[in-house]
Amino acid sequence: MVDINDMVLVSVDDHVVEPPHLFEGRLPAKYADLAPRFVTRDDGSNAWIYEGQEIANVALNAVAGRPPEEYGMEPTSFAELRAGCYDIDERVKDMDANGVLGSLCFPSFPQFCGQLFARTEDKDVALAMVRAYNDWHIDDWCGTHPGRFIPCSLPAIWDPQVLADEVRRTARKGAYAVTFSENPSKLGWPSFHSDHWDPFWQACSDEGVVVCLHIGSSSQLIITAPDAPIDCLITLTPINIVQAAADLIWSPVLRKFPDIKIALSEGGIGWIPYFLERVDYSYGRHRAWTGQDFGGRLPSEVFNERILTCFIDDRFGMASREFLNIDHVMWECDYPHSDSTWPFAPETVAEHFTGVPDDVVDKVTHRNAMEQFRYDPFTVLGGKENCTVGALRASAAGHDVSIRSVKPENVGAHANRAVDLAVPGR
Amino acid sequence: MVDINDMVLVSVDDHVVEPPHLFEGRLPAKYADLAPRFVTRDDGSNAWIYEGQEIANVALNAVAGRPPEEYGMEPTSFAELRAGCYDIDERVKDMDANGVLGSLCFPSFPQFCGQLFARTEDKDVALAMVRAYNDWHIDDWCGTHPGRFIPCSLPAIWDPQVLADEVRRTARKGAYAVTFSENPSKLGWPSFHSDHWDPFWQACSDEGVVVCLHIGSSSQLIITAPDAPIDCLITLTPINIVQAAADLIWSPVLRKFPDIKIALSEGGIGWIPYFLERVDYSYGRHRAWTGQDFGGRLPSEVFNERILTCFIDDRFGMASREFLNIDHVMWECDYPHSDSTWPFAPETVAEHFTGVPDDVVDKVTHRNAMEQFRYDPFTVLGGKENCTVGALRASAAGHDVSIRSVKPENVGAHANRAVDLAVPGR
Repeated sequence: MVDINDMVLVSVDDHVVEPPHLFEGRLPAKYADLAPRFVTRDDGSNAWIYEGQEIANVALNAVAGRPPEEYGMEPTSFAELRAGCYDIDERVKDMDANGVLGSLCFPSFPQFCGQLFARTEDKDVALAMVRAYNDWHIDDWCGTHPGRFIPCSLPAIWDPQVLADEVRRTARKGAYAVTFSENPSKLGWPSFHSDHWDPFWQACSDEGVVVCLHIGSSSQLIITAPDAPIDCLITLTPINIVQAAADLIWSPVLRKFPDIKIALSEGGIGWIPYFLERVDYSYGRHRAWTGQDFGGRLPSEVFNERILTCFIDDRFGMASREFLNIDHVMWECDYPHSDSTWPFAPETVAEHFTGVPDDVVDKVTHRNAMEQFRYDPFTVLGGKENCTVGALRASAAGHDVSIRSVKPENVGAHANRAVDLAVPGR
Repeated sequence: MVDINDMVLVSVDDHVVEPPHLFEGRLPAKYADLAPRFVTRDDGSNAWIYEGQEIANVALNAVAGRPPEEYGMEPTSFAELRAGCYDIDERVKDMDANGVLGSLCFPSFPQFCGQLFARTEDKDVALAMVRAYNDWHIDDWCGTHPGRFIPCSLPAIWDPQVLADEVRRTARKGAYAVTFSENPSKLGWPSFHSDHWDPFWQACSDEGVVVCLHIGSSSQLIITAPDAPIDCLITLTPINIVQAAADLIWSPVLRKFPDIKIALSEGGIGWIPYFLERVDYSYGRHRAWTGQDFGGRLPSEVFNERILTCFIDDRFGMASREFLNIDHVMWECDYPHSDSTWPFAPETVAEHFTGVPDDVVDKVTHRNAMEQFRYDPFTVLGGKENCTVGALRASAAGHDVSIRSVKPENVGAHANRAVDLAVPGR
């Protein structure tokens, strides 16, 4: 059994709830008045307003530290959120108390692919917003506490060349990850099967930038039926990334750009061995008439070489590690979303490691993430000994991680159908 | 290693291409003229015509014995099909040559849930068609060679009470399986979450009839993008049944009807351990606000007790058998569809059984199917020794199972996008 205090935890999937000051001083003067505004509404909840659109926060996206009985969908105020959701200093304290060294954070209100900005008619304005967001993300969110974050840029998704240029610009600032859509076709853009995105793939290849496809980034909620309980959606959202995995494998992307790496963020791992066997079976039986050609290789080999995977809690997946490329399996905390294991991440993930060799534990908990995202916290923080669960937790002694009720009137008062998640702004 | 000749193979998922004579003498005289008519079209292909609708056969549904280079989507004539697709005597010879003792066959032209008949405005006519179909299926298709088939009735899906009555009627004729939709909501009927189907579930519970949900029975093709290659669809169609699994687990059905059994036909098994862990995780984290209640049990326990599973080729799934309820895992051949292992099913499935105890092999290859579908071929056929792969193949000595080219002009001339499968009548 691994010693929990000796583990080093790097999470490749967390989320930032953007703070009100995000755009301050980051836009050209001529666009400053166009910046999204952070407002408090009549019901006390907070929202961003941009070009007449109002984007509420969704409670299920920021429930860390709240009792599950109060989880729900209704818009929340910042006062109800744990400060670690949006305050970088508090975030680091929450990470310390949870023994988490490093974190890759996805955006919230601009949506996973910056769709909010992509809808702006004046694309110069749109680009100014994306750049301001990325500068804030890299310099402020990730830069305030050096060595603690893996920067992940927002894409200028509306134009592949502009997108490629922004990938190159942010890579020079140290962002070796970019968030993208698990299915751009569902967002109204060309699919992975077209050559539309080639400048983007090329830029990511050239710069060594990992393309991160987060679950839900196709904005397609899985509504099995109008009266399906929300549990269906919660269960199915991660495994739905299997559609992106199939799209990627059968698309030209991986074969045309042999250096590109793509991460399936929050997708879990336990379904992957089944999937790999399935793609190889399909290839063997159908390639003669479908025309697929992987040269002398199998689709599963290409997947294992190019796709990065991760899990929050997936004991079966870890038990099946001999069927996975363990060099590409990473761990995630998902703070502050409802599936997160905060503040007991070390204890939870350690349960996966019974009988697992130390070098595999090291790969999954931090070494794979450090290698794939070119993230070197040990140098910045003065050695691995300052980066362990034990060291970080010791530094956070006294930090309050107790569950706090903030909205007792929520108990039993929720929407509980999957369709209710289809709120504006998602 | 199991001795291939000693195996007994019962397939819980095959398909019948209905023969032209199906309705002859099976309808009340007043409806005889309304029966679907089997026609040959100008291009030489065959089709059924019913109430002005023309339903073509789809080649990918009946490719047994053809070279993969000729697989495709275009409508075919019976002359191009292997006779075992539609001729019961030839079917049994094909089963013998493949060492397959028993077979449960799903319908083709009426669609998985008899939607073709459900669209009939006069519901007395619709019911007459369903009854005629079921009488033919049970008496002719399954009855001509006693002990060789597991009858599976077509549902009168438009009215839960009529449906229940037909389930009870066909159960009395020996049909302990009924084909139903993996998601009736997608077909325009109420979902599993409503109480609409309660008379049906009750009838299946009372009569011990297994409800079989075949992949694709929601008529929802998985089109990831307009230009997605058909390989995406082929890869994803089986695992898409995970949506039905989630619907069932979170619906009232399994908890309200504690005796009902539901089969996920052609759904594979390798993804199930991941899924079970996921539903238990969701339950543990979210039940406090979603209101789900499994008493003192876990959702995975209910799944393992009530859901039947099967595979064509799923080595990872068999290797993960300790995470499955092995008493509910069955095998299928999928004849004459394109994923079928015919005529080498024994050799293919035997490769799954390296290191697997004999009693587990027996359960998966035949004993589970015999128990769940109350199917007793050993008594009918004079002992197990007449039912083995070796015995059946010996009886079929000389039967031609060679691959035959019937449409060489097809090579390279196919539709190859997923959307092209969306042909009328599917």
